[in-house]
Amino acid sequence: MTKQPSDVEIAQAHTLEPIADIAAKAGIPEAALMPYGTNKAKVDITKIGDLSQAKGKVVLVTGVSPTPAGEGKSTTLIGLTDALANLGHNAIVALREPSLGPVMGIKGGAAGGGYSQIVPMEDINLHFTGDFHAITAANNTLAAMIDNHIHQGNQLGIDPRRVTWHRCLDVNDRALRTVVTGLGGPAHGVPAQTGFTITAASEIMAILGLATDLEDLRKRLGDITVGYTYDQKPVTARELNAEGALTALMRDALHPNLVQTLGGTPAFVHGGPFANIAHGCNTLLATKTAQLFGDIVLTEAGFGADLGGEKFMDIKARFGDLDVAGAVVVATIRSQKYNGGQAREDLTTENLKALRKGVVNLERHVENLRKFGVQPVVALNNFWSDTDAEREFMRDWAKDFGVALEFSDVWAKGGAGATDLAKALLENLSEGTSKQLYDPAQGVEASIETIATEIYRAERVEYSSKALKDLKYIKDNGWDNFPVVISKTQYSFSDDPAQLGAPEGHVLHVRELQTRTGAGFVVVLTGDVMTMPGLPKVPSANNIDVDKDGVISGLF
Amino acid sequence: MTKQPSDVEIAQAHTLEPIADIAAKAGIPEAALMPYGTNKAKVDITKIGDLSQAKGKVVLVTGVSPTPAGEGKSTTLIGLTDALANLGHNAIVALREPSLGPVMGIKGGAAGGGYSQIVPMEDINLHFTGDFHAITAANNTLAAMIDNHIHQGNQLGIDPRRVTWHRCLDVNDRALRTVVTGLGGPAHGVPAQTGFTITAASEIMAILGLATDLEDLRKRLGDITVGYTYDQKPVTARELNAEGALTALMRDALHPNLVQTLGGTPAFVHGGPFANIAHGCNTLLATKTAQLFGDIVLTEAGFGADLGGEKFMDIKARFGDLDVAGAVVVATIRSQKYNGGQAREDLTTENLKALRKGVVNLERHVENLRKFGVQPVVALNNFWSDTDAEREFMRDWAKDFGVALEFSDVWAKGGAGATDLAKALLENLSEGTSKQLYDPAQGVEASIETIATEIYRAERVEYSSKALKDLKYIKDNGWDNFPVVISKTQYSFSDDPAQLGAPEGHVLHVRELQTRTGAGFVVVLTGDVMTMPGLPKVPSANNIDVDKDGVISGLF
Repeated sequence: MTKQPSDVEIAQAHTLEPIADIAAKAGIPEAALMPYGTNKAKVDITKIGDLSQAKGKVVLVTGVSPTPAGEGKSTTLIGLTDALANLGHNAIVALREPSLGPVMGIKGGAAGGGYSQIVPMEDINLHFTGDFHAITAANNTLAAMIDNHIHQGNQLGIDPRRVTWHRCLDVNDRALRTVVTGLGGPAHGVPAQTGFTITAASEIMAILGLATDLEDLRKRLGDITVGYTYDQKPVTARELNAEGALTALMRDALHPNLVQTLGGTPAFVHGGPFANIAHGCNTLLATKTAQLFGDIVLTEAGFGADLGGEKFMDIKARFGDLDVAGAVVVATIRSQKYNGGQAREDLTTENLKALRKGVVNLERHVENLRKFGVQPVVALNNFWSDTDAEREFMRDWAKDFGVALEFSDVWAKGGAGATDLAKALLENLSEGTSKQLYDPAQGVEASIETIATEIYRAERVEYSSKALKDLKYIKDNGWDNFPVVISKTQYSFSDDPAQLGAPEGHVLHVRELQTRTGAGFVVVLTGDVMTMPGLPKVPSANNIDVDKDGVISGLF
Repeated sequence: MTKQPSDVEIAQAHTLEPIADIAAKAGIPEAALMPYGTNKAKVDITKIGDLSQAKGKVVLVTGVSPTPAGEGKSTTLIGLTDALANLGHNAIVALREPSLGPVMGIKGGAAGGGYSQIVPMEDINLHFTGDFHAITAANNTLAAMIDNHIHQGNQLGIDPRRVTWHRCLDVNDRALRTVVTGLGGPAHGVPAQTGFTITAASEIMAILGLATDLEDLRKRLGDITVGYTYDQKPVTARELNAEGALTALMRDALHPNLVQTLGGTPAFVHGGPFANIAHGCNTLLATKTAQLFGDIVLTEAGFGADLGGEKFMDIKARFGDLDVAGAVVVATIRSQKYNGGQAREDLTTENLKALRKGVVNLERHVENLRKFGVQPVVALNNFWSDTDAEREFMRDWAKDFGVALEFSDVWAKGGAGATDLAKALLENLSEGTSKQLYDPAQGVEASIETIATEIYRAERVEYSSKALKDLKYIKDNGWDNFPVVISKTQYSFSDDPAQLGAPEGHVLHVRELQTRTGAGFVVVLTGDVMTMPGLPKVPSANNIDVDKDGVISGLF
């Protein structure tokens, strides 16, 4: 077997179509195109017509519980969209943007892989069109305005100990998790213990993800709660007169970015909120724009179907009134063996027993998705170590369980590796059947309980004393009918990352609740949430380089 | 007198020429154009031919000692370039990019004013083409790699107390001047007292300003000293394997940005290092690119001629081997009255006595520039409160002193307001006469003394005990023949901001010296230097807004 070239090598060897041609292919009016070089563009949402007429079928691409080896969700999404295009469909990708932190840290790129990539991958993985930078700038301008307000007399009576707004940077930097600012004496601000999150975890990222137009963006930015007064009243960005400046900083970022797959399929790549602290998928506007120009839109949600998938349905689809026509659950034989207890280092060895035991994870995710009124198909991403017996087992399992399953080979073959999967998906699409799991009007506690019992299969929810206080505060402030974003480990259905497979009867421990009044949801923290990653001992950054002609290497 | 519309209103009422037309007008090959929307582009320096053939005449636009009312240096530069274009010259602007911090703080925009602006002013004043964001990302990726190295075993033996590399943000945020990072316990890094600078003060900004091509950029990024080991040896970015990743992050930022003036003149707007902590002018590559396509290039240096002007000649012109054909000293009658002791609130009242007393400031700057082998002309920027008698006085002064002086009205009239000034400039151009003030080979101390006595007219230089230690360290490490960047108050020739006019015989107090091994100069700190500004009580951000059509208001 010849070794396949690296992702960046494949991407660089590929001749891209001019972005204007990609746009023309999709029917996007030339006047709406804001080019960034010849291979990237923003699409001006004010010049594309009426988004309420966006009728393309939306397909959610989600996955089993993630495992250390990786399942290839984005890669499958990209290859599958190319496969649909090959079959004559007007298919469009809608995907989140990569974050620079992980690119420099542990993940390398996040633009697909092998022959199923979006390109230009170097640009997409580095600064792209500057959306993350715009969020960083807006986030930190607001932070400066808060501290400046306190420093300059504090007319609003903000309690410096209760400023909840954190600064952010698009970097993996553990040393910024907890910092003390404002040191150096009275001319240099008011000392405060605070922290930085990675930009993807900023509420402004979540707002970008959910905004329906510029006015909605402006309203949401004004609605942000930055902290609390000495008498515990929330203070908003609007009260600091910050909403206009933040909107100015975010104005261009609101327009979705258009690139292409290696197959020449149009791809909207826009926004990238974390799936633990936020809803974890590309922007609503990118999905809607893709729906306006495509007959079928494949879009991804972060982590497994219990985390990103649930939030996609209950947050994004709810806010955007999306009808979700279908779903793909991306899995690998390796991941199911891992969920069945096989050690990571042994995963390339055939192990039918572990596979049989672990496939309950896939079952559970399929069952869960059906609760949202969609009929998922399973994409089993091939890996060289999969054995015939293991594949046979999976085929039999799918028949018994009653779900469409197809193997895919998108990493090695691009769209040609997902033809059967594309056909299976098309056969399983429905219209008007998708729904949300809960009604937020029932209150935050009931919403949490619904997700905990229906999706996580917990027996009950336990609240810490802090969480009970937070719940009371939420009710007192009229925030009790916001939908909820549960922040939980992605490795298990439970809040304990060691419980693989399909645990049930466990207890979901809620530690704290935080209301995001701008994004419009309540974040429910269970266990520790990392909103600022760290770099590994040998970060990816060590391998990245540029030659004298500007060619980048080591991005993957 | 009808009130003139605001800068942003003038800019928005103007119909821009497509940037491709501006490029074509200048003779820039289409293949070199990297469009960012229809009104901005980067010019790929690898596709424009041989920069050693860049022969356009370079004119330095500098000013008197800045005063609170402002002198209109950028505005004059832009209007004057339009005037030269009106006279049939192939004139091009080369200007630094604005920083978001001051835009949101006290200054409003920094893209000229009135009818002498570069456009699209909103874009230029906000994110532009992302150069500052690229610097922020590179700067903070390096910071994360340093702290990660220490956290992960510290193989290089970096002393956490001696990490000199600071993080940066493009924001005015006094609370970030002194911070403690790495709190929260052993999993969250090593605690350190450190700080943030504004992005314009980052060494990477200075490096961008001086790099001659991508390889030179990569070398300089690797040469950055990030701190010192326990046994006081310098540690470079190269030793952390960071140079490749930093170069990748800076790759696109290296290409100069092309926009246009309101008069349709091409303008390269690129880089923006502080003139106190660095050399304070647009990139060398932008100036050279402008020289390749223009017969005459007007370029600015920060603050007065003693600060930005001196550094332009001794750092940028030296590193870039620039022949400087002429200089413009921008002054106002108000500024000279202020230097003559008239109070700020009385400046609109006629005061010939103060003007006579204060004009020594202008004299001194003109004298100083002549030491660099250029023949400056004085641009006296009109203000409504200037009286006939004051104008008459200035005309007589110029005759007596022997310098060309012309009044200009670029704010109200654009290029038409600087026709006489343009003619005077053309008459005073020379070729091959410009030179540097000192030879760095003489050593840092001697270089400082030359600038202190020749330009600042100090009697002598006094070093603190810290500075003496720094000097010894500089010699021990072989850094003694770097040129020097003296950081001094911009308000006075001395290091005391209260000494207006043209003080002499004073003592220059050197507090500390810092070597920038990547940029290639030694920063000499006199008095306090602010590398992170704060916001005023009512920041500009409070007035900035966007309407539902995306039109930005309040930027000035």
